[in-house]
Amino acid sequence: MKNTQTKKVGIIGSGNWGSTIGKIVGLNVQKLEDFETTVRMWVLEENIGEEKLSEIINSRHENVKYLPGIPLPDNLVAETEITKCADADYLIFVLPHQFLQSVLQKMKPTVKSTAIGISLIKGIDFADDSGIKLLTDTVEQNLGIPCGVLMGANLADEVSKEMFCEATLAFKDIHIAEDLKRIFKTDYFCISCITDQVTAELCGALKNIVAVGSGVINGLNLGNNTKAAVIRIGFMEMKNFIFQFFNDRNPNVDTFLESCGMADLITTCYGGRNTKIGHHLATTEKSVRELEKELLNGQSAQGPLTAAEVYKMLETHELLDKYPLLVAIHNICQRKLPPNKFIEYLKNHPLHE
Amino acid sequence: MKNTQTKKVGIIGSGNWGSTIGKIVGLNVQKLEDFETTVRMWVLEENIGEEKLSEIINSRHENVKYLPGIPLPDNLVAETEITKCADADYLIFVLPHQFLQSVLQKMKPTVKSTAIGISLIKGIDFADDSGIKLLTDTVEQNLGIPCGVLMGANLADEVSKEMFCEATLAFKDIHIAEDLKRIFKTDYFCISCITDQVTAELCGALKNIVAVGSGVINGLNLGNNTKAAVIRIGFMEMKNFIFQFFNDRNPNVDTFLESCGMADLITTCYGGRNTKIGHHLATTEKSVRELEKELLNGQSAQGPLTAAEVYKMLETHELLDKYPLLVAIHNICQRKLPPNKFIEYLKNHPLHE
Repeated sequence: MKNTQTKKVGIIGSGNWGSTIGKIVGLNVQKLEDFETTVRMWVLEENIGEEKLSEIINSRHENVKYLPGIPLPDNLVAETEITKCADADYLIFVLPHQFLQSVLQKMKPTVKSTAIGISLIKGIDFADDSGIKLLTDTVEQNLGIPCGVLMGANLADEVSKEMFCEATLAFKDIHIAEDLKRIFKTDYFCISCITDQVTAELCGALKNIVAVGSGVINGLNLGNNTKAAVIRIGFMEMKNFIFQFFNDRNPNVDTFLESCGMADLITTCYGGRNTKIGHHLATTEKSVRELEKELLNGQSAQGPLTAAEVYKMLETHELLDKYPLLVAIHNICQRKLPPNKFIEYLKNHPLHE
Repeated sequence: MKNTQTKKVGIIGSGNWGSTIGKIVGLNVQKLEDFETTVRMWVLEENIGEEKLSEIINSRHENVKYLPGIPLPDNLVAETEITKCADADYLIFVLPHQFLQSVLQKMKPTVKSTAIGISLIKGIDFADDSGIKLLTDTVEQNLGIPCGVLMGANLADEVSKEMFCEATLAFKDIHIAEDLKRIFKTDYFCISCITDQVTAELCGALKNIVAVGSGVINGLNLGNNTKAAVIRIGFMEMKNFIFQFFNDRNPNVDTFLESCGMADLITTCYGGRNTKIGHHLATTEKSVRELEKELLNGQSAQGPLTAAEVYKMLETHELLDKYPLLVAIHNICQRKLPPNKFIEYLKNHPLHE
């Protein structure tokens, strides 16, 4: 018998990561006395042949489009009406970041003042003038609720197959993180809780830039030492960037050793879409846009977008010379720097002075 | 014209890493006013067909056995008499660690009291009862000279081909590190100087244990997330181990972000002999010894040896439960744990409590 004061979970998004998390959360809440069993997952409706995706999920309990072959729990209910997901106590944001703003607007009237958000989106928002803006800040400002993040080395396909991994749950209030951990944690999905959500979130965005660089190294056949150097130099520039621009939010160096830090960076640099773009930037003369069309079915890679915003911030603050790797990757993405000149940019790096 | 007060460099060892470093140092001292141009490199003599290895190196300027195809500078002189290398001002130790003790004994009478050692050996020494002993401590105790380390993500073959990489030069006295940096640094071999030599040295040894684990994951086909988790959990156990047993020597968390830390760990976990042993531990039923014979031409992999010493220390201090990954890898190497149970050991890890 469940308690009457049960907490409701809503999942905003139903791609491969959203559906994977839906599976985990759906199964977990079945066993948690203080959570409502039904978990609503917002689906942007689309037709799959003659049928609707939401109806397929609710009848066959499988997201045939974005997570085929993985059985979803019956209590995970696809919902096309965003307001019906938005009245939950815990709101899990797991949608492409470019849709976040408009979705927040639609959700707003229904969101409880006591709700708590958690973002699984690896990306950044762009402020008008000032460069990078955290997506959790966008959620907090639009909905007036606190919002943390769940980040880590979590390729959705592998998590959906229950292959062992780790994740980092970051929330300013550690008690909220510990409570939330119960709905995410499984014996194959291991979670550490931290309070430094700013670093966790930024690592999830900035690593995509480094991954493009790692792909360039692959494309140039430059070997293991060079790749490790690019990953590490990238990591140090990520760290310096975070301490430079977000120092007032108390970043903690230990966060870089969490799954959201080094582990996610490693996974992303040894696979994934940004590495692929980097590889082909080095082996073809095509633009990022053309490569996205060819290789990613037209979807955007986050790395080049994030690199452009980072570049803008560094330029505004006259710090380009302190971040040779991030700058070089941006210039390679813009086709302003030939990829085979990438390494030249890393020689005489401030780290080696 | 060189100064009369020039410093002499001796290289103790001439394997692939020794010869690679010999090339770098030989070329660098040619341009340094305060260093003697001749660099002596100790060679354990062996016959190559009808010829002697030392004579080949000195006539053809190539180490045809351990670094074939790479031209060595003329001023790098192979020397079979250890005492003729031992009177240098800077002594670079780059030999298999099992030979270190006996070589030090032979060198001792000729070593200057003002000499400075630098170890490039990635391994550990074993104290009689107390487990791990640093090789630099062995050098310092035997020769009565200070000894630092040069560590990093430096596969010798790639460095010898002048592919871009980084390394960490760690010396308690930063001025010695800065001076030494001049003989190692090139535009493709970039060096950061730090004072935390204990962490730098231990990372170089402990990473080999984690690499065996990474190889097991490869052999089990467990995917990118799992591999990243194993690397990170291993990294955290390395860190905790160093802070646990070497805390009185002031380890610094920042060192883990240097090339000797995360970069070397990554390179080692994505290639190299320990990964190979791990892979075959997972896919065969052979012992480590048998695999070393088959795969490494009879040479020892460092990972299993180091794991055994680490295990002994953890057992003595009743800390086995705090280091599930290091313990599991030792047990897999000993064939006491089936490799497919590795992941079970990582569930409920103290990091995720």
